Amino acid sequence: MPKDVAIIGVGQSAFSRKYSGSVREMVFEAFAEAVRDAGITPKDIDASLVCSAPEYDKQRSPAGLIAEYLGLNPQPTFVLENICASGTSGVRVAYSLIKAGLHDIVAVIGFQKMSEISSAESQERMGRGADIMWEAPFGTMMPAYYAMHAQVHFARYNTTEEDLALIRVKASKYGAINDRAVFRKELTVEQCLSAGVVSSPLKVYDCCANADGASCLILANAARAKEASSQPVWILGLGAASATMNLTGRQFLDGLQVTRLAARQAYRMAGLSPRDVDVAEVHDCFTIAELMAYEDLGFAEPGRGKELIREGQTYIGGKIPVNVDGGLLSKGHPIGATGGSQVRTIVLQLRGEAGPMQVPGAEVGLVQNIGGVGIYSNVIILGR
Amino acid sequence: MPKDVAIIGVGQSAFSRKYSGSVREMVFEAFAEAVRDAGITPKDIDASLVCSAPEYDKQRSPAGLIAEYLGLNPQPTFVLENICASGTSGVRVAYSLIKAGLHDIVAVIGFQKMSEISSAESQERMGRGADIMWEAPFGTMMPAYYAMHAQVHFARYNTTEEDLALIRVKASKYGAINDRAVFRKELTVEQCLSAGVVSSPLKVYDCCANADGASCLILANAARAKEASSQPVWILGLGAASATMNLTGRQFLDGLQVTRLAARQAYRMAGLSPRDVDVAEVHDCFTIAELMAYEDLGFAEPGRGKELIREGQTYIGGKIPVNVDGGLLSKGHPIGATGGSQVRTIVLQLRGEAGPMQVPGAEVGLVQNIGGVGIYSNVIILGR
Repeated sequence: MPKDVAIIGVGQSAFSRKYSGSVREMVFEAFAEAVRDAGITPKDIDASLVCSAPEYDKQRSPAGLIAEYLGLNPQPTFVLENICASGTSGVRVAYSLIKAGLHDIVAVIGFQKMSEISSAESQERMGRGADIMWEAPFGTMMPAYYAMHAQVHFARYNTTEEDLALIRVKASKYGAINDRAVFRKELTVEQCLSAGVVSSPLKVYDCCANADGASCLILANAARAKEASSQPVWILGLGAASATMNLTGRQFLDGLQVTRLAARQAYRMAGLSPRDVDVAEVHDCFTIAELMAYEDLGFAEPGRGKELIREGQTYIGGKIPVNVDGGLLSKGHPIGATGGSQVRTIVLQLRGEAGPMQVPGAEVGLVQNIGGVGIYSNVIILGR
Repeated sequence: MPKDVAIIGVGQSAFSRKYSGSVREMVFEAFAEAVRDAGITPKDIDASLVCSAPEYDKQRSPAGLIAEYLGLNPQPTFVLENICASGTSGVRVAYSLIKAGLHDIVAVIGFQKMSEISSAESQERMGRGADIMWEAPFGTMMPAYYAMHAQVHFARYNTTEEDLALIRVKASKYGAINDRAVFRKELTVEQCLSAGVVSSPLKVYDCCANADGASCLILANAARAKEASSQPVWILGLGAASATMNLTGRQFLDGLQVTRLAARQAYRMAGLSPRDVDVAEVHDCFTIAELMAYEDLGFAEPGRGKELIREGQTYIGGKIPVNVDGGLLSKGHPIGATGGSQVRTIVLQLRGEAGPMQVPGAEVGLVQNIGGVGIYSNVIILGR
């Protein structure tokens, strides 16, 4: 297991439906927390990168603005975008910049202020994350895509709407104890099943919500990690893959091939298997996405993910606790900030600092982060 | 001098005022040329990254679309943005991905199809590359910013409008023999001086023009570089820096501190000095930008850049030939494609394949690429 690059500081703003300040102020909240956590000053940071989808804010090239506001000039900075997977692609690139010897300490900043535009505009722009020539003109939007995944999974494996409701019930339980989450109310299976249909079989509570928020991770090489005030959490494995943007190019729809490929790479690099993972954060933009992730990451055989949630195995105390911070479903999904928030949760878990959400004795954690409808997938394995 | 990562293939579409096909077709032109040049197939490429500013195209997250069209799935891909410096930041990141051992061969794809929106819209969006809270509302646009640089340089060093005209005359001479350039007509000093004022002292011919275009670079590790069909051109030095987005945060305006810092890093990494550079491509979005680059890169002392152009020292045959492919001024400036096009020119020079633009015996070349009004600067030193 390589121990070359570590995460030495993590920060996150509270996610909300509408942040009242500017982007720079929102990012500062996450950054200040991460810098304090690492026990460094902004001057220790050699480079920064900003993970964000550019459709929401009027400011072009926010990397420059953010570097100025955070006191990160004259170090290099740039924007990196993989839609919803931007944050974990940021980790991959920051790892590379450090491992290549160009930098010692890199800040990975993620943000989105989705309240800058209306919800309808936002849905339309998300649709343009699909092929604008061959798909988007037909009105495909995110819930419709994931509803197709659900229909195929239901037909092939007898998965049910109740299974999806169970996933949201779990998310709501942990969201209720996460003070950075948008949704803090516990839900019942009945509430989930009786909610309005968005795109059959997905109902309101099967969908995560747009949010405003920021996250920040500080990565360092081994020498600098040993000097940090926090316990370093090492990047043990990295995997990344892409699929055709056009859904007709996919070989199957009851799972995401991109996640299977990314997971295989990450497990191989770490020399670990799914059984070694103590806690995971997966990209539950919709309940069906979490169910597919159970299978794509190897926590369950294909078609048997539903057994994990029916048996409560993805709760704290189960075989493989998943999204015990509430996931995107409860935290909200501020696109560019999401991956960083997932990584933060795992870092806190591995340091034993997750408070009421702590998985006892967690030593290895995994993050899976998806961009678009399975266009991009990143899998990261972290260890103490 | 490190010889770990090389450029083994280069490609570029013809730059034009309006490309008639789609983004994917335009990118394919550059990609196909680069792949043929390297003597590889798309299946040899481990990862791709797409350098583009996102304001011009309706498609969100074009990396996914492009990877699909070019046959690069299931390898990872993402978008990287530094406005006009995106292409060279792509080289920096691709170098890191390879040097870190994550990938063997990476494609750096740059594009912009600026004709998708009107010229007025384009100017407004470029203005939003400055701080939208404190600068853009006052109507600052790119020519106005660079006009300020020119005014300060004129006042401090007695640089003249004729000096700037001489730079455009040189660009036009080489643009006339570059079949990928938008502007192929030779200009005289008189024509430049009598053209309409855009923002005093900058006139029409002091400004580069929006363009459509794509570029592609194939980078490889040492083992794969030795198998390539083209002569590898090695990345000897890399430098990158950022400055405050807000111009009031800069210490001086008669040059760009970001370029001085980036150049220092790149020379140090390569173990070379300005005198060792045989040919350079600099970011001449405006004539004054080329003049400042002479000084910021150490080809002339501060204030003495004008002597280089007055004496013809930046022509082929002079002390340091600069932008002998016509530069942005003649080629046009399709934002995300520009850095890749600059690197392509230097690669062809170092391989002795620059045709009528060849600098005899060139062994070391330099690229300088700026994003925004000196917010970002990358300097890359390449060698045979």
